[in-house]
Amino acid sequence: VFDPLITLTTDFGDGTPYVAAMKGVILSINPEARLIDLSHRLLPQDLTHAAFFVREALPFFPPQALHVIVVDPGVGTERALLYVEVGGTRLLAPDNGVWTLLAGDEPPVVRRLANAGLWRPTVSHTFHGRDILAPVAAQLSLGAKAESVGPITARWESLHLPTPTRTASGWHGEVVFVDNFGNLITNLRAADIPVHGATIQVADRAVPRRVRAYGEAAAGNLVALESSSGWLEIAVVNGNAAERLGLGRGATVGVAVEESQLPT
Amino acid sequence: VFDPLITLTTDFGDGTPYVAAMKGVILSINPEARLIDLSHRLLPQDLTHAAFFVREALPFFPPQALHVIVVDPGVGTERALLYVEVGGTRLLAPDNGVWTLLAGDEPPVVRRLANAGLWRPTVSHTFHGRDILAPVAAQLSLGAKAESVGPITARWESLHLPTPTRTASGWHGEVVFVDNFGNLITNLRAADIPVHGATIQVADRAVPRRVRAYGEAAAGNLVALESSSGWLEIAVVNGNAAERLGLGRGATVGVAVEESQLPT
Amino acid sequence: VFDPLITLTTDFGDGTPYVAAMKGVILSINPEARLIDLSHRLLPQDLTHAAFFVREALPFFPPQALHVIVVDPGVGTERALLYVEVGGTRLLAPDNGVWTLLAGDEPPVVRRLANAGLWRPTVSHTFHGRDILAPVAAQLSLGAKAESVGPITARWESLHLPTPTRTASGWHGEVVFVDNFGNLITNLRAADIPVHGATIQVADRAVPRRVRAYGEAAAGNLVALESSSGWLEIAVVNGNAAERLGLGRGATVGVAVEESQLPT
Repeated sequence: VFDPLITLTTDFGDGTPYVAAMKGVILSINPEARLIDLSHRLLPQDLTHAAFFVREALPFFPPQALHVIVVDPGVGTERALLYVEVGGTRLLAPDNGVWTLLAGDEPPVVRRLANAGLWRPTVSHTFHGRDILAPVAAQLSLGAKAESVGPITARWESLHLPTPTRTASGWHGEVVFVDNFGNLITNLRAADIPVHGATIQVADRAVPRRVRAYGEAAAGNLVALESSSGWLEIAVVNGNAAERLGLGRGATVGVAVEESQLPT
Repeated sequence: VFDPLITLTTDFGDGTPYVAAMKGVILSINPEARLIDLSHRLLPQDLTHAAFFVREALPFFPPQALHVIVVDPGVGTERALLYVEVGGTRLLAPDNGVWTLLAGDEPPVVRRLANAGLWRPTVSHTFHGRDILAPVAAQLSLGAKAESVGPITARWESLHLPTPTRTASGWHGEVVFVDNFGNLITNLRAADIPVHGATIQVADRAVPRRVRAYGEAAAGNLVALESSSGWLEIAVVNGNAAERLGLGRGATVGVAVEESQLPT
Repeated sequence: VFDPLITLTTDFGDGTPYVAAMKGVILSINPEARLIDLSHRLLPQDLTHAAFFVREALPFFPPQALHVIVVDPGVGTERALLYVEVGGTRLLAPDNGVWTLLAGDEPPVVRRLANAGLWRPTVSHTFHGRDILAPVAAQLSLGAKAESVGPITARWESLHLPTPTRTASGWHGEVVFVDNFGNLITNLRAADIPVHGATIQVADRAVPRRVRAYGEAAAGNLVALESSSGWLEIAVVNGNAAERLGLGRGATVGVAVEESQLPT
């Protein structure tokens, strides 16, 4: 597949010329490339945030899109740069594990970028997004074959979000993402937690109510619900749970289920 | 009309995967869609801000554009989702009134989204922007007829900005928007206020000077002028009026006009 | 050359309708225009930031792109608006010098926008980006000739970043930009400073180590290195130098070179 659709996801922020430079490099090679900004405000050098973002966003795209993801605290070291096909998604990223949460049952195809003929003639030590990933993306969008970027590799970094643990009465998990509304997204699957007969705590605060949608409780109520991606989410209706509770990523979440409701 | 031009306006912020998910859904249905970001930093769940933004921005677009506006504190409740044609503008939004300031003399055409065949197969309770509005926008951009989205309705929520009142000597209004430069945009039409012989106050501060352009007064001066959309605006030349005065949306604005200047 | 590629760079921020209005104006004139956002978060009315951004970003774009750059503290005064061809880059901007760092050996071609037939019918005193620059950009993207925008002028504002000075033992420079990671970009060319035998100070702090890439030192180390554009950069590995040192733009940078290493 080749296609002009290239998405860009970085932690560069919006006031710096780095995003613009990548766009310029791509459009200089393929003026027909269609650039889609996903986010340039991932938390700086925060691979956990990037991995969460990638898992929640990329599966919605069509397979012909090519995703360039640059969160790169290791730039300039010996870490590799990768081309990956995983679960119907194609992406380019430093070898930092940001894509590994996408892996399902089928093994990914991973290539180590090695063909410097596709790169910018001069490669800096501090900006491989501009000097390697952007031109390789542009070449792929023009029809370069995946094989041309470099050889298949069987080694890559993996990154895992914290996983919940089973307890005698339920689960122990944690907050893995806070969104723009202050909603706390946890690593617990909402479908596992019965709607009746479960008590939910975040840090040492009880969450008094489980709802299906924010609007089922009055404004200001602390509620638990299923997030748009199926996770247990803790929210304040029309408010900001993170601010109100003073909590963020890493806050512990305890779920206790009445014995009769425990899955067997 | 159908056209690949789809604009996106949300309060999702830029660090979350929600905007990206909507883009992916649209491009999966219509890979030729041309996505234009208007803003993803509307104030969270602030319908007044959204309505102001919509009124100031959308009329500049060509009629073939389709605008998707997602500020949705009522997601998951019984509030409807709407397709609207109003004053040459076509848009999709929750039924929260954000578009009603666009209504002029001609009555709008409003449809309630009801054809679930155009939606994502599974609809969450917390993200109708992704599960309903995005796929409907994509289908319309592919040529689906407006009639196909759902039946015409004669009921919708309306939203009003505060309106100014006449006083014995002039008007009493308020600040309805603060821009990125700290300029205070009011709800008073600048053309109504004579350039000479009017005194202007914001909160309890006199605004000593009326100018046509910022540059007519020296840096640091507090001035009143006509905003780029015709509103009375209060600004500090090359400075930030909101910070300097410690004022924001809702601050009262009083205008007193010399008797000889009062409109009859 | 005419081409649908138009980039937008402003200091408008993302929550205001001003960027959207410019996009609407362009697409109303040329619905096929391809809009590329470079940044809308330049520091408000900060021409130095804008000039740095322009110099670092625009040279990466292909020559057919047309760049619209709106940082315009003088809007509404007699300052001109310009069309510029400089070093293979085409741009539209107020006459405020933001493009002059792009000038190389070849003289730029500069035109003063004067043909109001290309503008919006009504031009406000506070938003020439929307009323003049956007429609002129759209007309050029449709094939209007550069000659049609207005006459060639030999006068324009120039803007200079502070230049370093030679001292008895090396150079005295300063920080000219702080990026999203807190890296301090200076006005000293890294290639001029020998890797061994040079001592580097920022404000009164010694920078103990010179590296090629962030990853060559352990996390938390204060290092100097060559930025992705060739400047001497001061960084904290996987950290934020600006926050850690409490320094920003304008901080002094001293370089002392051992006599044997001084260029002759």
